[in-house]
Amino acid sequence: MNIGGKRFRTLWETPGGLEVIDQRHLPHRFATATLRTPEEVAIAIREMWIRGAPLIGAVAAYGLAFAMNRGDDPASAATTLLATRPTAVNLKWALDFVLRSPLAPLEAARQVVADELERSRLIGEHGLALIREHAARRTPVNVLTHCNAGWLACVDHGTATAPIYAAHEAGIPVHVWVDETRPRNQGAALTAYELGEHGVPHTVIADNAGGHLMRHGRVDLCVVGADRVAANGDAANKIGTYLKALAAADTGVPFHVALPTSTIDWTLPDGAAIPIEERDPDEVRFIDGLGPHGPTRVRLVPESSPALNPAFDVTPARLVTSFITERGVGPITMMRNNHPSSR
Amino acid sequence: MNIGGKRFRTLWETPGGLEVIDQRHLPHRFATATLRTPEEVAIAIREMWIRGAPLIGAVAAYGLAFAMNRGDDPASAATTLLATRPTAVNLKWALDFVLRSPLAPLEAARQVVADELERSRLIGEHGLALIREHAARRTPVNVLTHCNAGWLACVDHGTATAPIYAAHEAGIPVHVWVDETRPRNQGAALTAYELGEHGVPHTVIADNAGGHLMRHGRVDLCVVGADRVAANGDAANKIGTYLKALAAADTGVPFHVALPTSTIDWTLPDGAAIPIEERDPDEVRFIDGLGPHGPTRVRLVPESSPALNPAFDVTPARLVTSFITERGVGPITMMRNNHPSSR
Repeated sequence: MNIGGKRFRTLWETPGGLEVIDQRHLPHRFATATLRTPEEVAIAIREMWIRGAPLIGAVAAYGLAFAMNRGDDPASAATTLLATRPTAVNLKWALDFVLRSPLAPLEAARQVVADELERSRLIGEHGLALIREHAARRTPVNVLTHCNAGWLACVDHGTATAPIYAAHEAGIPVHVWVDETRPRNQGAALTAYELGEHGVPHTVIADNAGGHLMRHGRVDLCVVGADRVAANGDAANKIGTYLKALAAADTGVPFHVALPTSTIDWTLPDGAAIPIEERDPDEVRFIDGLGPHGPTRVRLVPESSPALNPAFDVTPARLVTSFITERGVGPITMMRNNHPSSR
Repeated sequence: MNIGGKRFRTLWETPGGLEVIDQRHLPHRFATATLRTPEEVAIAIREMWIRGAPLIGAVAAYGLAFAMNRGDDPASAATTLLATRPTAVNLKWALDFVLRSPLAPLEAARQVVADELERSRLIGEHGLALIREHAARRTPVNVLTHCNAGWLACVDHGTATAPIYAAHEAGIPVHVWVDETRPRNQGAALTAYELGEHGVPHTVIADNAGGHLMRHGRVDLCVVGADRVAANGDAANKIGTYLKALAAADTGVPFHVALPTSTIDWTLPDGAAIPIEERDPDEVRFIDGLGPHGPTRVRLVPESSPALNPAFDVTPARLVTSFITERGVGPITMMRNNHPSSR
């Protein structure tokens, strides 16, 4: 999508490397980074230069290709890359794809990117139909989203944002309530940034505000992404998603989870088996923002107060109105047709 | 309660004025401010040097006393003070008390403070029984709270924290999950501070994390305060309270609202009639913390992204397990016996 009026994707090849948007500096500064080795790729994923389950998978595919092309043991390289982030299943999916592909490693990585791009486009197409239904009753259509399941989390279009961009392109008035998404503020920093740069009307709210807005009829639908979904439809996504799903159920607001089917882990019977990453408590105790003299980290809590930082929660399938995937809009069982192993 | 090992209250009289803890600088710096005129009191309330429904009432009572003692029209002075914060009903209650009291204005304000102190003490005593029940099954008892309904929001003891301090004094191991409470971070800044200074074990979490912790059995009970409660038990409290109440109901965790009965507005049939304050969007767009060179404000969102900042939400009475007031623990109807008008 657009940044400063110019068309971008989150990654592109350069001679000898992979260029990615270094998302750590957003929304205050646009920067890119060049990744040339599997080690650089691992750092970029672990330190969250790039994030978002689909993008992690795509970048990791390049990391594995870099390793294989310099003669590293493929299985060992894949294991190292897999350990960079524990929750996202796309990571494993993308690494397995490169390991098993008959294509040359770099070609296989390119295929991961092309497939990911096409899935995002189709999610947008299918989700657009949902937004059209709301638009027939009232505009602008108010969509609430949590975290960043935007194009910055994918190669382009996004997952949760794909229907929003598709509606915007189709001339349907949409307005997005952007959860700031503590503790890392991916909503305030990334979703607000990408929507703003592409010209989509939006308003940032504290994570606490969504329930209140739903009770007052100011949200037409919720669309969120997912980091891993179990076979029964239990959906792991950024911490706090469960609270919004509860509010949506309590107020009768449709709650949709948009994701490529590569995010569904058919080996897990339910969400209880999804490992939840606990991240550094200092992500809660400190926050990064733009101060009077540039990017600044400030402490929010008393020096001696500890914090806990679970990064994801699991929304039970009973709270999900429908899943939006490249295969259409419907219950999780519908997404199982043409199991990815048949690709 | 204690700060740095020394016993404090949130306000005390000095010659010609009222000394208050200026809470804007917490948790990074302890400071006090002297209020000598109704205008200074109005600024202190509006600009949130002091906050918390019970404390607002107590300080406003002094403001009205200052006005009456210098010969201002009492009704007009009360109207001005009432306009400083729209949601808290204690404010109106305390002003009415001073207006109608047969006592001299300053004596009436002292009575507001003494009554408020006694209510907090009794809330602690009644709530302690609830915590004892949990302690009989498992310790430490894990209490989740939202915002600051602590002693810093009252004269002493607090409302939601009163049972916690009472349990701590009684030697019952308690641990408090402290919601940071965006956008103003009263949990991270004030609740964590006052618990830490008094020696109560606690852990700060993002507001998004509470539902996850409840689903995993890590919360024994929730205790929150309230800014205004309607006659049917619908409870207005800091934005995000509703989301925690939903999670508690979904996971079978008891959800208690601790408040003095002066916070109950018997004139309102239900929560739909409670006015919800919308505050400056910049409270969402910027955050204050301690930077490398002292207190610093940083911007979190893109320069051109707007924000919305509803300060409170209403938790429907159906989600409240019980109310804890100076009169005991039970349904809202129980709190109506000895209606405050009979005081």
